[in-house]
Amino acid sequence: MALGEFDLIARYFDRGPARRALLGIGDDCALLRPETPGAVLAITTDMLVCDRHFMADAPPASVGYKALAVNLSDLAAMGARPLAFTLAIALPRVDEAWLEAFSRGMFELADQSACELIGGDTTCGPLTISITALGEVPAGAALRRDAGQPGDDLWVSGALGGAAFAVREALAARPLPVGHPALERMERPQPRLALGMALRHLARAAIDLSDGLASDLGHVLSRSRLGAELDWTTIPVEPCLSGLAEADRQALALAGGDDYELLFSAASENRVAIAALGERLGVPLTRIGVLTAGSGLRIRDARGHTLTLSSGGFDHFA
Amino acid sequence: MALGEFDLIARYFDRGPARRALLGIGDDCALLRPETPGAVLAITTDMLVCDRHFMADAPPASVGYKALAVNLSDLAAMGARPLAFTLAIALPRVDEAWLEAFSRGMFELADQSACELIGGDTTCGPLTISITALGEVPAGAALRRDAGQPGDDLWVSGALGGAAFAVREALAARPLPVGHPALERMERPQPRLALGMALRHLARAAIDLSDGLASDLGHVLSRSRLGAELDWTTIPVEPCLSGLAEADRQALALAGGDDYELLFSAASENRVAIAALGERLGVPLTRIGVLTAGSGLRIRDARGHTLTLSSGGFDHFA
Repeated sequence: MALGEFDLIARYFDRGPARRALLGIGDDCALLRPETPGAVLAITTDMLVCDRHFMADAPPASVGYKALAVNLSDLAAMGARPLAFTLAIALPRVDEAWLEAFSRGMFELADQSACELIGGDTTCGPLTISITALGEVPAGAALRRDAGQPGDDLWVSGALGGAAFAVREALAARPLPVGHPALERMERPQPRLALGMALRHLARAAIDLSDGLASDLGHVLSRSRLGAELDWTTIPVEPCLSGLAEADRQALALAGGDDYELLFSAASENRVAIAALGERLGVPLTRIGVLTAGSGLRIRDARGHTLTLSSGGFDHFA
Repeated sequence: MALGEFDLIARYFDRGPARRALLGIGDDCALLRPETPGAVLAITTDMLVCDRHFMADAPPASVGYKALAVNLSDLAAMGARPLAFTLAIALPRVDEAWLEAFSRGMFELADQSACELIGGDTTCGPLTISITALGEVPAGAALRRDAGQPGDDLWVSGALGGAAFAVREALAARPLPVGHPALERMERPQPRLALGMALRHLARAAIDLSDGLASDLGHVLSRSRLGAELDWTTIPVEPCLSGLAEADRQALALAGGDDYELLFSAASENRVAIAALGERLGVPLTRIGVLTAGSGLRIRDARGHTLTLSSGGFDHFA
């Protein structure tokens, strides 16, 4: 028996009366009240298309997890606390096993992040997932791309290149074994929510790394009207890539996307506090360069030579 | 030359610094502050898929208009005032003429409705549009589907069946001529925003008619735990359908979707005020039945017989 749209929502997405929202799934709109007096709303939307942002045979629990994770990562990059999200999904057919796992993966991260599904839309169509996440951040405390200052240290969380390596291997029909750390990075990126919130008063500019370090740093530089210098030898590369040639590691860590780590700038007087924050959260935080007056990105390698990237990162229409 | 994602956003969607939002397009999140003290946020998401919700050869300005209109209609049905929206769009290729017209149609309605585009996502994929609209409504004043009371009058705005007639003719390869009123209803539904806001203190339950009168009224009945009686002879049918057989008109007006009129319930002591409101707004408002204790929907025809519909409306997976 075909499962109708409303049955599908009831079975896989509606978990009963809203806990945080005033009104959740089942009306024309959800109703939500910001929780902290004086906070402003942070709103982000990301769309994932099958065969472009995930593979058709990707584990559906990971697809559900990642679809929410990439949105929560945007909240993290603003220093926002998650509140709620909506899900719009087009499905080519009702595949109950797929939907069960998809919703399970999505709710796993939603529950971890105290972020409630409050509404959305399901329809028939090529598999496409669009999530809008809402968070809140104290007025004036958001980490904006345009807030960098010349002389700021540049920091990055975690290690880079793992997700791009897993994408590359999958596209080359050399899929990594289940449990491989790079595959985990690709399928289940960890939005750095606690870090983003803790950086509200320590960092200036911030962005999450979705398109690749060079490309995403470029957005900060262009919005802050600054340049930057990076030291390749300090950039944290995913340990499982240590066997690769250096050029390979550079391409993956500098131009590969999908790691969803945070890149942020901060005044140098905050170095000790930021290092302590990383210790406290158990998140590696590494200083990789500085913002400079002027424009352009210079990356120096171990010999002091300037690195040239063949691609500025990953542009969805390039 | 291929237009990249960021160029595309700059050219067709970014209209400069945000006017209403604290921060608009171009950062990880938009930042928005609710405007009215004590108001709560109303949030809705609708996804439109090419060849399902609109035809591939539909005028792109109408597609842009409609994609926003169906979301604003959900705000109207809650009595909410629009604030802002995000747009996620997957495009099979960059077609600049299509994008120019799409964004023009979308912004035409956005400007009319004082609703600002504050962010979103563009990607490559089968043509799919997902909009999330945010509005605000005074706390406790939202028109909820579960707020109907036995004995409430049932009212509907405008006239029904036009959009469904245009869909039917298009699917039968008998497309209506440009300017035909039913085609206008299908391509450019008018979200009843002023009506929804004015009904905050006159109506109880409300819903917008997207799936068809019988189906959408069914949602109100199920959430309000009530039944309803409608009088077919009072239901306002789109005038351009007057030449059709009565069974045809009944199917289109009772089970056809996509009109985006408001259906609402109100205490009978508000009849005069509601009629005056319709006059003031220039929106026909018609009393079509009553909510009853119990359950089920009964529709009586001109001879007092109960109508039976072959379908309860339009279910996207049926």
